[in-house]
Amino acid sequence: MAYHLLQHERTRASILAETLTLALSNLKHCQRCNNYNETDLCSRCASPKRDPGQLCVVETPIDMNMMEQTHAYNGLYFVLMGHLSPLDGVGPGDIGLTRLQQRVADEQVQEVMLATNFTNEGEATAHYITRMLEPLDVTVSRIARGVPVGGEIEYVDSGTLAQAIRERRQLNSTNDAATRIATMAVSDRS
Amino acid sequence: MAYHLLQHERTRASILAETLTLALSNLKHCQRCNNYNETDLCSRCASPKRDPGQLCVVETPIDMNMMEQTHAYNGLYFVLMGHLSPLDGVGPGDIGLTRLQQRVADEQVQEVMLATNFTNEGEATAHYITRMLEPLDVTVSRIARGVPVGGEIEYVDSGTLAQAIRERRQLNSTNDAATRIATMAVSDRS
Repeated sequence: MAYHLLQHERTRASILAETLTLALSNLKHCQRCNNYNETDLCSRCASPKRDPGQLCVVETPIDMNMMEQTHAYNGLYFVLMGHLSPLDGVGPGDIGLTRLQQRVADEQVQEVMLATNFTNEGEATAHYITRMLEPLDVTVSRIARGVPVGGEIEYVDSGTLAQAIRERRQLNSTNDAATRIATMAVSDRS
Repeated sequence: MAYHLLQHERTRASILAETLTLALSNLKHCQRCNNYNETDLCSRCASPKRDPGQLCVVETPIDMNMMEQTHAYNGLYFVLMGHLSPLDGVGPGDIGLTRLQQRVADEQVQEVMLATNFTNEGEATAHYITRMLEPLDVTVSRIARGVPVGGEIEYVDSGTLAQAIRERRQLNSTNDAATRIATMAVSDRS
C-alpha cells in the first residue's frame, strides 16, 4: 500500500496523512459509551429514540457496528476497547469496568447484554462483569451460543453442538414445566 | 476410486462389493429410532442406561452420530431419514412423522428435542413437528441458534448475530424478572 501511494497516489497520500493527523488530534472517547467521537457525547448516546433501559457491552467499535447492522437491538452501548487478559497485563481498570459499574448503578439500566466474543478472553470478561454487577438490581444476559443460521448439524463442531444442546430452548408453552429448560440452562452455568 | 480399485486393489474391491451386497440385504430400520440396524431394535434403543424421557429428532444417521460425539445428550433418538420438502414431493408421511407422534403419545417421553438443520427445510420440519405435538403433554425444545464456540462478533454474519440477540440468555438470577428473557424469546417466535 505504501509503494502504491508513493508512486501513483501522491495527492491522495497527502490527504490521507492530513486526515489521520486530524483524527488523532480531534477524536476522543464518548463520555458515556466510550466509543471514538469528536464531541463529549456521541449521537447514539444522545438519541432519545434509543431504549435507555438496555445496555449492550461490546469489546470494540467494530463489534458495535456489527450489532447495529443486525437491526435487532435498539438500546445503548458500552465499548470496552479490549477484553480482560491477565497474561498481557490487561486488568478490569484498563477496560473501563469501574465506569461501566458506575453507569449501571446511576442510570435507569434494566438489562445489561454481554456481547463480548466467544473466545476465552471474551468469556472471561463476560463472567467477570456478571460477578461485578451481581449486587446491583439489573438483569445480566449473554447473546446466544449455538448453531449459526443456515448451519447443518453434520458440519458443526462438537463444542458448538454440545452448547446448542445444553442451551436449547422450549418452543411450546402448553407444558406445565414451561421454564424448566431455561432454569436448567442457567443452573448448568453457575 | 473405481480405477484405483480395478488396478491396484482387486481383492479389496471384491470384499467391498460383498460387504455392500450384505449391507443392502441385511440392514433394516430399527423399529423405534428408524436408524439402520441389523435387528428390529438397535442397541441404543434397547439400552437401559439411556433416559427414556428424552427424545431427540434428527434428520440423518450422520446427525445422530454428531449428537453422540458431543457426550452432552443421553436420551433416545428418532431419525427422520430426511426433511419436509414440498417442492421435492416429501411430505409428513415420507419422514415417519405419524410414527413419531404415536411414539411420543405411547411412551413416557417428557421432552422432544428438535435437532434438525437450521436450513429452510430443517426449520420447516421443526415447526411442523412442534405444531403436530401441541395436543400432547410434552415439552418441545429446539437446540440453540447463535454464535459458535470460539466465534468473534466481528466475523459473524448479521442473521446469526440477530438471532443471538433475540435468543440471549439471562446469566444472573438475582433479578425478580428471572424468566423475562426466556418468555420474551418464546413469544417472539410464536
